[in-house]
Amino acid sequence: MSARSGVVTLLTDFGHKDPYVGIMKGVILGLAPEVRIVDLTHDIDPQDVTEANFALQGSFPYFPKGTVHVVVVDPGVGSRRRIVCAEAHGSYFIAPDNGVLTDIFTADDVVRGVTEESLFRGGELSQTFHGRDIFAPVAAHLARGVDFARVGSPIDGMMRLDHPLAVVHQDGTIGGNVVHVDRFGNLITNVRGEALLALPEERRHVRMYGVEVGPPVTSYGAVSPGSPLAIVDSFGFLEIAVNGGSAEKHFNALRGDSVRVG
Amino acid sequence: MSARSGVVTLLTDFGHKDPYVGIMKGVILGLAPEVRIVDLTHDIDPQDVTEANFALQGSFPYFPKGTVHVVVVDPGVGSRRRIVCAEAHGSYFIAPDNGVLTDIFTADDVVRGVTEESLFRGGELSQTFHGRDIFAPVAAHLARGVDFARVGSPIDGMMRLDHPLAVVHQDGTIGGNVVHVDRFGNLITNVRGEALLALPEERRHVRMYGVEVGPPVTSYGAVSPGSPLAIVDSFGFLEIAVNGGSAEKHFNALRGDSVRVG
Amino acid sequence: MSARSGVVTLLTDFGHKDPYVGIMKGVILGLAPEVRIVDLTHDIDPQDVTEANFALQGSFPYFPKGTVHVVVVDPGVGSRRRIVCAEAHGSYFIAPDNGVLTDIFTADDVVRGVTEESLFRGGELSQTFHGRDIFAPVAAHLARGVDFARVGSPIDGMMRLDHPLAVVHQDGTIGGNVVHVDRFGNLITNVRGEALLALPEERRHVRMYGVEVGPPVTSYGAVSPGSPLAIVDSFGFLEIAVNGGSAEKHFNALRGDSVRVG
Repeated sequence: MSARSGVVTLLTDFGHKDPYVGIMKGVILGLAPEVRIVDLTHDIDPQDVTEANFALQGSFPYFPKGTVHVVVVDPGVGSRRRIVCAEAHGSYFIAPDNGVLTDIFTADDVVRGVTEESLFRGGELSQTFHGRDIFAPVAAHLARGVDFARVGSPIDGMMRLDHPLAVVHQDGTIGGNVVHVDRFGNLITNVRGEALLALPEERRHVRMYGVEVGPPVTSYGAVSPGSPLAIVDSFGFLEIAVNGGSAEKHFNALRGDSVRVG
Repeated sequence: MSARSGVVTLLTDFGHKDPYVGIMKGVILGLAPEVRIVDLTHDIDPQDVTEANFALQGSFPYFPKGTVHVVVVDPGVGSRRRIVCAEAHGSYFIAPDNGVLTDIFTADDVVRGVTEESLFRGGELSQTFHGRDIFAPVAAHLARGVDFARVGSPIDGMMRLDHPLAVVHQDGTIGGNVVHVDRFGNLITNVRGEALLALPEERRHVRMYGVEVGPPVTSYGAVSPGSPLAIVDSFGFLEIAVNGGSAEKHFNALRGDSVRVG
Repeated sequence: MSARSGVVTLLTDFGHKDPYVGIMKGVILGLAPEVRIVDLTHDIDPQDVTEANFALQGSFPYFPKGTVHVVVVDPGVGSRRRIVCAEAHGSYFIAPDNGVLTDIFTADDVVRGVTEESLFRGGELSQTFHGRDIFAPVAAHLARGVDFARVGSPIDGMMRLDHPLAVVHQDGTIGGNVVHVDRFGNLITNVRGEALLALPEERRHVRMYGVEVGPPVTSYGAVSPGSPLAIVDSFGFLEIAVNGGSAEKHFNALRGDSVRVG
């Protein structure tokens, strides 16, 4: 049982045009006026569970333990998909059982089905907005200190995403993929910085789209403006960027594209 | 006189590019450091009073009573349009008198003109940013517990939007309109779910753009991916959606488009 | 030494797609759970230091004294550019030393280099996300009341932007530039309202793109819908707008465009 930090984070694909996120906050503040609510992002592409998993696994380590993280990227809303709550890393994660927590919990963590209706919003449940009717109120109750066991019984067999991992080939080269393109057009890959730095220095050459990007540098400004570069990003992964520009545009890049090192 | 929840909501057409919303929050926190501020949305199309009224009427019921809701969608700023404050549903609503509160207050609610200058921000009033100079400080004072009567005298003759209502035709069919297109491309109509469900089951057929969408289903996943569907949305209205897609794109839909049931 | 308001503002070019801003908030709340965090804007164009300086100088006066303002528009992250903290106007400003505080501090204000590593986030510093590793934790410590002198030693020689100022010509006419285009397509210039109003009334004529916009009016509605107008904006500067429309579109305008008065 983890102590509570009084912080709730929200990660959705609701965008900013509609008041859906604000409505979730109204429900939370009605039940737990003292909690602090932080938006991770609401601009996940609609129903992009992979992107949401990526954003969450990069974010939660920077929050105090005992935070309640809520993910509502939920293409299966209204169907029989389960809603789950995991206790992992000393915090709580509430999400649909659709793989969005793939990189969050391990087999050692307890995951419960969220089934205790007394923790839901009163009144009839909607078919299309469980963020408001279930996720928000359960998060508020948890953030206030409700016992984790109350949300429902332990379950297993949670869905997991089958996403690409970087591989080390027999010749020592590393093959990876772009897993995220950020706002600046930086290409974040699944190649760990440590794997890259474990190579002998003369082999730390990054190649992408048939272009030799060179060995990793330590700041964007280390290459001339408009030139591509490789760098270990702030989350420990190999990133391809362009000094003062966008690698996404420079390479016409897409998530899933291949990168090779060595 | 309603107790105060300590929550203030903001609904504007200010967008996210400029710091206008942040400035309003600075003014509020300077006067009422303890209030909680929630953004409903700031992406109302510029000066789209109809859209703002729709967003607000769908949001306020999910906030605690005694919340102060602030709307700044205000094409008439600097003109003689009045600023009003309504006490309705146990909460407070501050807005320009331009119809943006049409679906919020009834003839039984007290509406006051916001005229008490001692509640405004000190210094000269600007001609173009009453959100900062009037709405924000008045909201802060109200949220802290200032007497409602202090904002100004009761007034009447408030502007109301003349927007389309769903109608039941003589043959029992229901005619309605799309009143909102949300982030997912879902088409929200003004046809109440109860009106739909009051029809005999065999007549619950929804027709739009000459297409038979079928009877309402209970989850997006009830039809095959890419297919349109009808569903009662989480606010109790008929919604046209596409499983895993966008009904807006599927039908090339616009607000105001017609829907027919029965 | 200024008292602290308990408010931290954030101004970045991080956008809303990635969880970078949320991560900074997690770091702040972990160190200072009681502070209030306000977003100014995160939609500064990537690395647009000029735009960030403009947004900040227009915003800070509306926050309580003792607020900690954080700017992370930082193309030089990971290079040797300094991070600075200025005490000015009774508040604190943390930013990269790249000119982004040009219109904030004067020669009389104390600016310190941010070098005290015990105020940074524990663990290894990243090369690309000092917002998380330095700016956020230092802001949290300052907001909680840590002595300003602790952040580092006083420095000088800070970078300043060399941006255009409005000039009064020999014949009394004023020449200025568009310094910001806001969400509504309003063109904000660097011509002070007082300079305009110091002209004799018959000479207060505003000319832009070869068009006579006329003397300043007192509300957008003072001209017919779709017509351009000049107005003194809510920050005291001459603004060119279109009633019910966008001056940006009307004139196909860009930042830097010239305006002339007199």
